[in-house]
Amino acid sequence: MSNTLLGKEEFVARLRAEGQRRYHDQHPFHELMHAGGLSREQLAAWTLNRFYYQTRIPIKDAIILSKTEDAAFRRIWIERVRDHDGRDENGKDGGLELWLRLAEAVGLERAEVASLGSVLPGVRFACDAYVTLCRESPLVVAVASSLTEMFAPDLMSKRIAAWEQHYPWVGAEALAYFRSRVPRARRDGEFGLAFVVTHAGSRELQDQCVAALVRKAEILWHLVDCVASATGGPTAPSPVTPSAPP
Amino acid sequence: MSNTLLGKEEFVARLRAEGQRRYHDQHPFHELMHAGGLSREQLAAWTLNRFYYQTRIPIKDAIILSKTEDAAFRRIWIERVRDHDGRDENGKDGGLELWLRLAEAVGLERAEVASLGSVLPGVRFACDAYVTLCRESPLVVAVASSLTEMFAPDLMSKRIAAWEQHYPWVGAEALAYFRSRVPRARRDGEFGLAFVVTHAGSRELQDQCVAALVRKAEILWHLVDCVASATGGPTAPSPVTPSAPP
Repeated sequence: MSNTLLGKEEFVARLRAEGQRRYHDQHPFHELMHAGGLSREQLAAWTLNRFYYQTRIPIKDAIILSKTEDAAFRRIWIERVRDHDGRDENGKDGGLELWLRLAEAVGLERAEVASLGSVLPGVRFACDAYVTLCRESPLVVAVASSLTEMFAPDLMSKRIAAWEQHYPWVGAEALAYFRSRVPRARRDGEFGLAFVVTHAGSRELQDQCVAALVRKAEILWHLVDCVASATGGPTAPSPVTPSAPP
Repeated sequence: MSNTLLGKEEFVARLRAEGQRRYHDQHPFHELMHAGGLSREQLAAWTLNRFYYQTRIPIKDAIILSKTEDAAFRRIWIERVRDHDGRDENGKDGGLELWLRLAEAVGLERAEVASLGSVLPGVRFACDAYVTLCRESPLVVAVASSLTEMFAPDLMSKRIAAWEQHYPWVGAEALAYFRSRVPRARRDGEFGLAFVVTHAGSRELQDQCVAALVRKAEILWHLVDCVASATGGPTAPSPVTPSAPP
Protein backbone atom coordinates (compact mmCIF):
# COMPACT_ATOMS: atom_id res chain seq x y z
CA MET A 1 0.00 0.00 0.00
CA SER A 2 1.38 3.34 -1.02
CA ASN A 3 1.98 6.17 1.41
CA THR A 4 1.89 8.82 -1.28
CA LEU A 5 -0.79 11.47 -0.89
CA LEU A 6 -3.25 11.17 -3.74
CA GLY A 7 -3.77 14.20 -5.92
CA LYS A 8 -7.16 15.87 -5.60
CA GLU A 9 -8.55 14.45 -8.82
CA GLU A 10 -7.35 10.94 -8.14
CA PHE A 11 -8.72 11.04 -4.59
CA VAL A 12 -12.12 12.26 -5.80
CA ALA A 13 -12.15 9.66 -8.56
CA ARG A 14 -11.41 6.92 -6.05
CA LEU A 15 -14.15 8.09 -3.68
CA ARG A 16 -16.63 8.21 -6.54
CA ALA A 17 -15.63 4.83 -7.94
CA GLU A 18 -15.61 2.98 -4.63
CA GLY A 19 -18.89 4.54 -3.54
CA GLN A 20 -20.67 4.23 -6.85
CA ARG A 21 -20.00 0.58 -7.43
CA ARG A 22 -21.42 -0.31 -4.02
CA TYR A 23 -24.30 2.13 -4.03
CA HIS A 24 -27.60 0.53 -3.14
CA ASP A 25 -29.37 1.71 -6.27
CA GLN A 26 -27.96 -1.45 -7.84
CA HIS A 27 -29.47 -3.78 -5.27
CA PRO A 28 -32.03 -6.00 -7.06
CA PHE A 29 -34.72 -5.05 -4.52
CA HIS A 30 -34.27 -1.41 -5.45
CA GLU A 31 -34.20 -2.32 -9.13
CA LEU A 32 -37.47 -4.18 -8.66
CA MET A 33 -38.88 -1.21 -6.74
CA HIS A 34 -38.08 1.09 -9.62
CA ALA A 35 -39.49 -1.34 -12.16
CA GLY A 36 -42.76 -1.35 -10.29
CA GLY A 37 -42.48 -4.94 -9.12
CA LEU A 38 -42.76 -4.58 -5.36
CA SER A 39 -45.89 -5.57 -3.51
CA ARG A 40 -47.56 -3.18 -1.13
CA GLU A 41 -46.21 -5.23 1.74
CA GLN A 42 -42.67 -5.00 0.41
CA LEU A 43 -42.94 -1.27 -0.10
CA ALA A 44 -44.30 -0.89 3.42
CA ALA A 45 -41.56 -3.06 4.93
CA TRP A 46 -38.92 -1.01 3.17
CA THR A 47 -40.52 2.24 4.37
CA LEU A 48 -40.79 1.05 7.96
CA ASN A 49 -37.24 -0.24 8.16
CA ARG A 50 -35.68 2.65 6.34
CA PHE A 51 -37.27 4.96 8.94
CA TYR A 52 -34.81 3.56 11.47
CA TYR A 53 -32.01 4.77 9.23
CA GLN A 54 -33.67 8.17 8.98
CA THR A 55 -33.79 8.48 12.77
CA ARG A 56 -30.03 7.84 12.99
CA ILE A 57 -29.19 10.74 10.69
CA PRO A 58 -29.67 13.66 13.11
CA ILE A 59 -27.91 11.66 15.81
CA LYS A 60 -24.82 11.00 13.70
CA ASP A 61 -24.87 14.58 12.44
CA ALA A 62 -24.95 15.90 16.01
CA ILE A 63 -21.94 13.69 16.72
CA ILE A 64 -20.17 15.23 13.74
CA LEU A 65 -21.09 18.71 15.01
CA SER A 66 -19.48 17.86 18.34
CA LYS A 67 -16.21 16.86 16.68
CA THR A 68 -15.17 20.23 15.39
CA GLU A 69 -13.78 23.43 16.82
CA ASP A 70 -14.92 25.33 13.75
CA ALA A 71 -18.10 27.35 14.26
CA ALA A 72 -18.31 28.10 10.52
CA PHE A 73 -18.41 24.37 9.78
CA ARG A 74 -20.99 23.85 12.49
CA ARG A 75 -23.20 26.62 11.11
CA ILE A 76 -23.37 24.74 7.82
CA TRP A 77 -23.57 21.20 9.19
CA ILE A 78 -26.26 22.03 11.75
CA GLU A 79 -28.70 22.54 8.86
CA ARG A 80 -28.59 18.80 8.29
CA VAL A 81 -29.97 18.17 11.75
CA ARG A 82 -32.64 20.80 11.17
CA ASP A 83 -33.49 19.32 7.76
CA HIS A 84 -34.51 16.11 9.49
CA ASP A 85 -35.84 17.33 12.83
CA GLY A 86 -37.63 20.29 11.27
CA ARG A 87 -37.40 23.99 11.89
CA ASP A 88 -40.87 24.84 13.13
CA GLU A 89 -42.08 24.14 16.63
CA ASN A 90 -43.69 20.81 15.84
CA GLY A 91 -41.17 19.65 13.27
CA LYS A 92 -43.90 19.45 10.60
CA ASP A 93 -41.42 20.55 7.97
CA GLY A 94 -38.76 18.04 8.97
CA GLY A 95 -37.60 14.98 7.10
CA LEU A 96 -38.60 12.64 9.93
CA GLU A 97 -42.16 13.97 9.80
CA LEU A 98 -42.25 13.73 5.99
CA TRP A 99 -41.12 10.14 6.24
CA LEU A 100 -43.87 9.31 8.72
CA ARG A 101 -46.37 10.79 6.27
CA LEU A 102 -44.91 8.56 3.59
CA ALA A 103 -45.29 5.62 5.95
CA GLU A 104 -48.96 6.40 6.45
CA ALA A 105 -49.40 6.71 2.69
CA VAL A 106 -48.03 3.20 2.15
CA GLY A 107 -50.54 1.87 4.67
CA LEU A 108 -48.53 1.75 7.89
CA GLU A 109 -49.61 2.86 11.33
CA ARG A 110 -47.73 6.01 12.14
CA ALA A 111 -47.29 5.09 15.80
CA GLU A 112 -45.90 1.66 14.97
CA VAL A 113 -43.33 3.12 12.61
CA ALA A 114 -42.38 5.87 15.05
CA SER A 115 -41.95 3.35 17.87
CA LEU A 116 -39.17 1.61 15.92
CA GLY A 117 -40.47 -1.57 17.50
CA SER A 118 -40.74 -3.59 14.30
CA VAL A 119 -37.36 -2.79 12.80
CA LEU A 120 -35.48 -5.84 11.54
CA PRO A 121 -32.46 -6.69 13.70
CA GLY A 122 -30.07 -6.62 10.76
CA VAL A 123 -31.30 -3.17 9.78
CA ARG A 124 -30.78 -1.97 13.32
CA PHE A 125 -27.23 -3.36 13.43
CA ALA A 126 -26.31 -1.72 10.15
CA CYS A 127 -27.75 1.68 11.06
CA ASP A 128 -26.21 1.59 14.52
CA ALA A 129 -22.89 0.79 12.86
CA TYR A 130 -23.23 4.09 11.00
CA VAL A 131 -23.58 6.03 14.25
CA THR A 132 -20.65 4.14 15.75
CA LEU A 133 -18.51 4.80 12.70
CA CYS A 134 -19.15 8.53 13.02
CA ARG A 135 -18.57 8.49 16.76
CA GLU A 136 -15.25 6.67 16.56
CA SER A 137 -13.77 8.32 13.49
CA PRO A 138 -11.86 11.56 13.05
CA LEU A 139 -14.04 14.39 11.75
CA VAL A 140 -12.95 14.17 8.13
CA VAL A 141 -13.57 10.41 8.06
CA ALA A 142 -17.01 10.84 9.62
CA VAL A 143 -17.79 13.43 6.96
CA ALA A 144 -16.55 11.06 4.25
CA SER A 145 -19.07 8.47 5.39
CA SER A 146 -21.82 10.89 4.33
CA LEU A 147 -20.60 11.03 0.75
CA THR A 148 -23.12 8.51 -0.50
CA GLU A 149 -25.03 11.77 -0.89
CA MET A 150 -23.06 12.29 -4.08
CA PHE A 151 -25.17 9.55 -5.62
CA ALA A 152 -28.46 10.28 -3.88
CA PRO A 153 -29.98 12.95 -6.15
CA ASP A 154 -30.07 10.62 -9.16
CA LEU A 155 -31.56 7.81 -7.10
CA MET A 156 -34.16 10.14 -5.59
CA SER A 157 -35.21 11.50 -8.98
CA LYS A 158 -35.50 7.97 -10.33
CA ARG A 159 -37.48 6.90 -7.28
CA ILE A 160 -39.95 9.77 -7.53
CA ALA A 161 -40.64 9.00 -11.18
CA ALA A 162 -40.95 5.27 -10.51
CA TRP A 163 -43.28 5.64 -7.54
CA GLU A 164 -45.51 8.09 -9.40
CA GLN A 165 -45.71 5.70 -12.32
CA HIS A 166 -45.90 2.33 -10.63
CA TYR A 167 -47.36 3.01 -7.18
CA PRO A 168 -49.80 5.85 -7.85
CA TRP A 169 -51.92 4.74 -4.89
CA VAL A 170 -49.23 6.17 -2.60
CA GLY A 171 -50.03 9.66 -3.85
CA ALA A 172 -47.65 12.29 -5.14
CA GLU A 173 -47.97 14.37 -1.96
CA ALA A 174 -46.47 11.58 0.12
CA LEU A 175 -43.26 11.72 -1.89
CA ALA A 176 -42.37 15.11 -0.42
CA TYR A 177 -39.40 13.64 1.47
CA PHE A 178 -37.79 12.31 -1.70
CA ARG A 179 -38.37 15.65 -3.42
CA SER A 180 -36.82 17.57 -0.55
CA ARG A 181 -33.73 15.42 -0.71
CA VAL A 182 -32.81 16.09 -4.35
CA PRO A 183 -31.45 19.64 -3.81
CA ARG A 184 -30.35 19.00 -0.24
CA ALA A 185 -28.36 15.87 -1.02
CA ARG A 186 -26.72 17.70 -3.90
CA ARG A 187 -25.81 20.65 -1.68
CA ASP A 188 -24.62 18.38 1.14
CA GLY A 189 -22.69 16.04 -1.13
CA GLU A 190 -20.80 18.92 -2.72
CA PHE A 191 -19.97 20.49 0.62
CA GLY A 192 -18.90 17.16 2.09
CA LEU A 193 -16.71 16.28 -0.86
CA ALA A 194 -14.96 19.66 -0.80
CA PHE A 195 -14.38 19.30 2.93
CA VAL A 196 -12.98 15.79 2.64
CA VAL A 197 -10.69 16.72 -0.23
CA THR A 198 -9.35 19.69 1.73
CA HIS A 199 -8.97 18.04 5.11
CA ALA A 200 -7.78 14.52 4.39
CA GLY A 201 -4.19 15.68 4.62
CA SER A 202 -2.39 12.35 4.61
CA ARG A 203 -2.64 9.20 2.57
CA GLU A 204 -3.68 7.38 5.71
CA LEU A 205 -6.61 9.74 6.18
CA GLN A 206 -7.49 9.54 2.48
CA ASP A 207 -7.59 5.75 2.74
CA GLN A 208 -9.71 5.98 5.90
CA CYS A 209 -12.11 8.27 4.06
CA VAL A 210 -12.48 5.83 1.20
CA ALA A 211 -12.94 2.98 3.68
CA ALA A 212 -15.63 4.94 5.56
CA LEU A 213 -17.53 5.61 2.34
CA VAL A 214 -17.27 1.92 1.45
CA ARG A 215 -18.57 0.96 4.88
CA LYS A 216 -21.41 3.42 4.57
CA ALA A 217 -22.38 2.05 1.16
CA GLU A 218 -22.36 -1.43 2.70
CA ILE A 219 -24.68 -0.20 5.46
CA LEU A 220 -27.22 1.14 2.96
CA TRP A 221 -26.91 -2.00 0.86
CA HIS A 222 -27.35 -4.30 3.84
CA LEU A 223 -30.46 -2.41 4.93
CA VAL A 224 -32.14 -3.11 1.59
CA ASP A 225 -30.90 -6.68 1.59
CA CYS A 226 -32.40 -7.34 5.02
CA VAL A 227 -35.76 -5.98 3.87
CA ALA A 228 -35.59 -8.07 0.70
CA SER A 229 -34.72 -11.17 2.67
CA ALA A 230 -37.55 -10.67 5.17
CA THR A 231 -40.19 -10.06 2.51
CA GLY A 232 -39.33 -12.65 -0.09
CA GLY A 233 -37.77 -10.08 -2.39
CA PRO A 234 -34.62 -10.53 -4.43
CA THR A 235 -31.54 -10.56 -2.24
CA ALA A 236 -27.91 -9.98 -3.10
CA PRO A 237 -24.91 -10.33 -0.87
CA SER A 238 -22.97 -7.15 -0.22
CA PRO A 239 -20.25 -6.99 -2.83
CA VAL A 240 -17.08 -7.58 -0.83
CA THR A 241 -14.23 -6.20 -2.84
CA PRO A 242 -10.94 -4.74 -1.79
CA SER A 243 -11.54 -1.13 -0.88
CA ALA A 244 -7.96 -0.07 -1.48
CA PRO A 245 -6.67 -0.67 -4.99
CA PRO A 246 -3.22 -2.24 -5.39
CA MET B 1 -27.49 6.96 51.43
CA SER B 2 -31.18 6.65 50.78
CA ASN B 3 -32.63 4.95 47.76
CA THR B 4 -35.94 6.76 48.04
CA LEU B 5 -36.90 8.88 45.07
CA LEU B 6 -36.97 12.51 46.10
CA GLY B 7 -40.20 14.40 45.60
CA LYS B 8 -40.12 17.07 42.91
CA GLU B 9 -39.85 19.98 45.32
CA GLU B 10 -37.16 18.38 47.41
CA PHE B 11 -35.15 17.44 44.31
CA VAL B 12 -35.37 20.97 42.93
CA ALA B 13 -34.46 22.43 46.30
CA ARG B 14 -31.42 20.20 46.50
CA LEU B 15 -30.28 21.11 42.98
CA ARG B 16 -30.68 24.79 43.78
CA ALA B 17 -28.92 24.56 47.12
CA GLU B 18 -25.96 22.51 45.93
CA GLY B 19 -25.51 24.64 42.84
CA GLN B 20 -26.03 28.00 44.47
CA ARG B 21 -23.56 27.55 47.28
CA ARG B 22 -20.80 26.64 44.84
CA TYR B 23 -21.70 29.16 42.16
CA HIS B 24 -18.75 31.22 41.01
CA ASP B 25 -20.42 34.55 41.68
CA GLN B 26 -19.06 34.10 45.21
CA HIS B 27 -15.46 33.68 44.12
CA PRO B 28 -13.44 36.64 45.50
CA PHE B 29 -12.09 37.40 42.02
CA HIS B 30 -15.64 37.83 40.76
CA GLU B 31 -16.53 39.86 43.83
CA LEU B 32 -13.56 42.11 43.14
CA MET B 33 -14.61 42.34 39.49
CA HIS B 34 -18.04 43.52 40.49
CA ALA B 35 -16.65 45.96 43.02
CA GLY B 36 -14.57 47.54 40.27
CA GLY B 37 -11.24 46.37 41.68
CA LEU B 38 -9.77 44.44 38.76
CA SER B 39 -6.97 45.85 36.67
CA ARG B 40 -7.23 45.98 32.91
CA GLU B 41 -4.82 43.08 32.74
CA GLN B 42 -6.94 40.99 35.07
CA LEU B 43 -10.10 41.77 33.15
CA ALA B 44 -8.35 40.84 29.92
CA ALA B 45 -6.98 37.60 31.36
CA TRP B 46 -10.42 36.61 32.54
CA THR B 47 -11.94 37.43 29.14
CA LEU B 48 -9.29 35.49 27.25
CA ASN B 49 -9.50 32.40 29.42
CA ARG B 50 -13.25 32.41 29.69
CA PHE B 51 -13.39 32.32 25.88
CA TYR B 52 -12.09 28.76 26.04
CA TYR B 53 -15.11 27.87 28.12
CA GLN B 54 -17.36 29.61 25.60
CA THR B 55 -15.91 27.52 22.77
CA ARG B 56 -16.71 24.30 24.64
CA ILE B 57 -20.41 25.15 24.92
CA PRO B 58 -21.55 24.34 21.37
CA ILE B 59 -19.40 21.20 21.45
CA LYS B 60 -20.96 19.87 24.64
CA ASP B 61 -24.42 20.89 23.41
CA ALA B 62 -23.89 18.96 20.18
CA ILE B 63 -22.92 15.96 22.30
CA ILE B 64 -26.16 16.37 24.24
CA LEU B 65 -28.08 16.60 20.94
CA SER B 66 -26.55 13.31 19.87
CA LYS B 67 -27.69 11.55 23.03
CA THR B 68 -31.40 11.68 22.42
CA GLU B 69 -33.91 9.94 20.19
CA ASP B 70 -36.37 12.78 20.71
CA ALA B 71 -36.57 15.19 17.78
CA ALA B 72 -38.74 17.57 19.82
CA PHE B 73 -36.00 17.83 22.45
CA ARG B 74 -33.40 18.34 19.74
CA ARG B 75 -35.42 21.11 18.10
CA ILE B 76 -35.28 23.02 21.38
CA TRP B 77 -31.72 22.16 22.38
CA ILE B 78 -30.25 22.92 18.96
CA GLU B 79 -31.01 26.61 19.58
CA ARG B 80 -28.25 26.59 22.20
CA VAL B 81 -25.69 25.66 19.56
CA ARG B 82 -27.07 28.34 17.27
CA ASP B 83 -27.04 30.92 20.08
CA HIS B 84 -23.28 30.53 20.30
CA ASP B 85 -22.30 29.77 16.71
CA GLY B 86 -24.70 32.31 15.28
CA ARG B 87 -27.53 32.02 12.82
CA ASP B 88 -26.36 34.16 9.95
CA GLU B 89 -23.78 33.08 7.43
CA ASN B 90 -20.81 34.61 9.18
CA GLY B 91 -21.95 34.01 12.72
CA LYS B 92 -21.91 37.73 13.46
CA ASP B 93 -24.92 37.33 15.72
CA GLY B 94 -23.46 34.41 17.65
CA GLY B 95 -22.22 34.35 21.23
CA LEU B 96 -18.69 33.37 20.18
CA GLU B 97 -18.48 36.42 17.93
CA LEU B 98 -19.93 38.66 20.63
CA TRP B 99 -17.32 37.37 23.05
CA LEU B 100 -14.51 38.11 20.60
CA ARG B 101 -15.83 41.65 20.31
CA LEU B 102 -15.75 41.88 24.09
CA ALA B 103 -12.17 40.62 23.99
CA GLU B 104 -11.20 43.37 21.57
CA ALA B 105 -12.92 45.93 23.78
CA VAL B 106 -10.81 44.89 26.78
CA GLY B 107 -7.68 45.37 24.70
CA LEU B 108 -6.94 41.87 23.46
CA GLU B 109 -5.93 40.82 19.98
CA ARG B 110 -8.85 39.02 18.44
CA ALA B 111 -6.66 36.48 16.65
CA GLU B 112 -4.77 35.60 19.81
CA VAL B 113 -7.97 34.98 21.72
CA ALA B 114 -9.49 32.99 18.88
CA SER B 115 -6.37 30.83 18.59
CA LEU B 116 -6.87 29.58 22.17
CA GLY B 117 -3.09 29.51 22.34
CA SER B 118 -2.76 31.45 25.59
CA VAL B 119 -5.34 29.63 27.65
CA LEU B 120 -4.14 28.63 31.11
CA PRO B 121 -3.66 24.86 31.46
CA GLY B 122 -5.91 24.66 34.50
CA VAL B 123 -8.68 26.44 32.63
CA ARG B 124 -8.30 24.04 29.74
CA PHE B 125 -8.48 21.01 32.03
CA ALA B 126 -11.59 22.29 33.76
CA CYS B 127 -13.41 23.15 30.53
CA ASP B 128 -12.43 19.88 28.89
CA ALA B 129 -13.77 18.10 31.97
CA TYR B 130 -17.13 19.68 31.19
CA VAL B 131 -17.16 18.21 27.68
CA THR B 132 -16.08 14.84 29.04
CA LEU B 133 -18.78 14.92 31.71
CA CYS B 134 -21.43 15.49 29.03
CA ARG B 135 -19.97 12.85 26.75
CA GLU B 136 -19.84 10.15 29.42
CA SER B 137 -23.11 10.86 31.23
CA PRO B 138 -26.65 9.77 30.50
CA LEU B 139 -28.69 12.48 28.80
CA VAL B 140 -30.51 13.69 31.90
CA VAL B 141 -27.26 13.98 33.83
CA ALA B 142 -25.60 15.88 31.00
CA VAL B 143 -28.58 18.24 30.97
CA ALA B 144 -28.31 18.65 34.75
CA SER B 145 -24.74 19.85 34.35
CA SER B 146 -26.12 22.87 32.46
CA LEU B 147 -28.28 23.97 35.39
CA THR B 148 -25.81 26.57 36.58
CA GLU B 149 -27.90 28.57 34.12
CA MET B 150 -30.48 28.86 36.88
CA PHE B 151 -28.11 31.27 38.60
CA ALA B 152 -26.69 32.98 35.53
CA PRO B 153 -29.28 35.73 34.86
CA ASP B 154 -28.67 37.38 38.23
CA LEU B 155 -24.92 37.22 37.77
CA MET B 156 -25.14 38.60 34.25
CA SER B 157 -27.34 41.52 35.33
CA LYS B 158 -24.95 42.29 38.16
CA ARG B 159 -21.98 42.04 35.80
CA ILE B 160 -23.48 44.39 33.21
CA ALA B 161 -24.19 47.03 35.85
CA ALA B 162 -20.76 46.63 37.43
CA TRP B 163 -18.85 46.84 34.14
CA GLU B 164 -20.80 49.89 33.00
CA GLN B 165 -20.05 51.59 36.31
CA HIS B 166 -16.49 50.52 37.00
CA TYR B 167 -14.98 49.75 33.60
CA PRO B 168 -16.67 52.32 31.35
CA TRP B 169 -13.68 52.23 29.00
CA VAL B 170 -14.86 48.81 27.80
CA GLY B 171 -17.93 50.42 26.29
CA ALA B 172 -21.56 49.42 26.72
CA GLU B 173 -21.75 47.98 23.21
CA ALA B 174 -19.14 45.36 24.04
CA LEU B 175 -21.35 43.93 26.77
CA ALA B 176 -23.81 42.58 24.19
CA TYR B 177 -22.92 38.98 25.05
CA PHE B 178 -23.83 39.42 28.70
CA ARG B 179 -27.08 41.12 27.72
CA SER B 180 -27.99 38.34 25.32
CA ARG B 181 -27.49 35.76 28.04
CA VAL B 182 -29.97 37.17 30.54
CA PRO B 183 -33.14 36.01 28.74
CA ARG B 184 -31.46 32.98 27.15
CA ALA B 185 -30.03 31.62 30.37
CA ARG B 186 -33.41 32.09 32.02
CA ARG B 187 -35.18 30.26 29.20
CA ASP B 188 -32.56 27.50 29.09
CA GLY B 189 -32.38 27.10 32.85
CA GLU B 190 -36.14 26.68 33.11
CA PHE B 191 -36.26 24.17 30.28
CA GLY B 192 -33.32 22.23 31.67
CA LEU B 193 -34.74 22.09 35.17
CA ALA B 194 -38.13 20.88 33.95
CA PHE B 195 -36.41 18.21 31.86
CA VAL B 196 -34.23 17.00 34.70
CA VAL B 197 -37.12 16.88 37.16
CA THR B 198 -39.19 14.86 34.69
CA HIS B 199 -36.50 12.48 33.49
CA ALA B 200 -34.41 11.69 36.55
CA GLY B 201 -36.62 8.73 37.31
CA SER B 202 -34.61 7.04 40.04
CA ARG B 203 -32.85 8.20 43.15
CA GLU B 204 -29.59 7.11 41.60
CA LEU B 205 -30.18 9.39 38.61
CA GLN B 206 -31.30 12.21 40.87
CA ASP B 207 -28.07 11.90 42.84
CA GLN B 208 -26.07 11.80 39.60
CA CYS B 209 -27.82 14.98 38.46
CA VAL B 210 -26.95 16.77 41.68
CA ALA B 211 -23.36 15.52 41.41
CA ALA B 212 -23.11 16.74 37.80
CA LEU B 213 -24.33 20.19 38.78
CA VAL B 214 -21.82 20.25 41.64
CA ARG B 215 -19.03 19.25 39.25
CA LYS B 216 -20.09 21.90 36.78
CA ALA B 217 -20.11 24.57 39.48
CA GLU B 218 -16.61 23.43 40.45
CA ILE B 219 -15.52 23.79 36.82
CA LEU B 220 -16.72 27.40 36.64
CA TRP B 221 -15.20 28.14 40.03
CA HIS B 222 -11.85 26.62 39.11
CA LEU B 223 -11.72 28.63 35.89
CA VAL B 224 -11.98 31.89 37.83
CA ASP B 225 -9.56 30.64 40.45
CA CYS B 226 -6.92 29.83 37.80
CA VAL B 227 -7.26 33.30 36.32
CA ALA B 228 -7.01 34.87 39.77
CA SER B 229 -3.96 32.81 40.60
CA ALA B 230 -2.19 33.67 37.35
CA THR B 231 -2.85 37.41 37.65
CA GLY B 232 -2.20 38.05 41.31
CA GLY B 233 -5.89 38.29 42.10
CA PRO B 234 -7.63 36.89 45.15
CA THR B 235 -7.82 33.11 45.01
CA ALA B 236 -10.05 30.71 46.89
CA PRO B 237 -9.92 26.96 46.92
CA SER B 238 -12.96 25.23 45.48
CA PRO B 239 -15.25 24.54 48.37
CA VAL B 240 -15.10 20.78 48.75
CA THR B 241 -18.20 19.77 50.61
CA PRO B 242 -20.22 16.59 50.54
CA SER B 243 -22.49 16.77 47.55
CA ALA B 244 -25.03 14.34 48.93
CA PRO B 245 -26.58 15.39 52.23
CA PRO B 246 -26.77 12.80 55.01
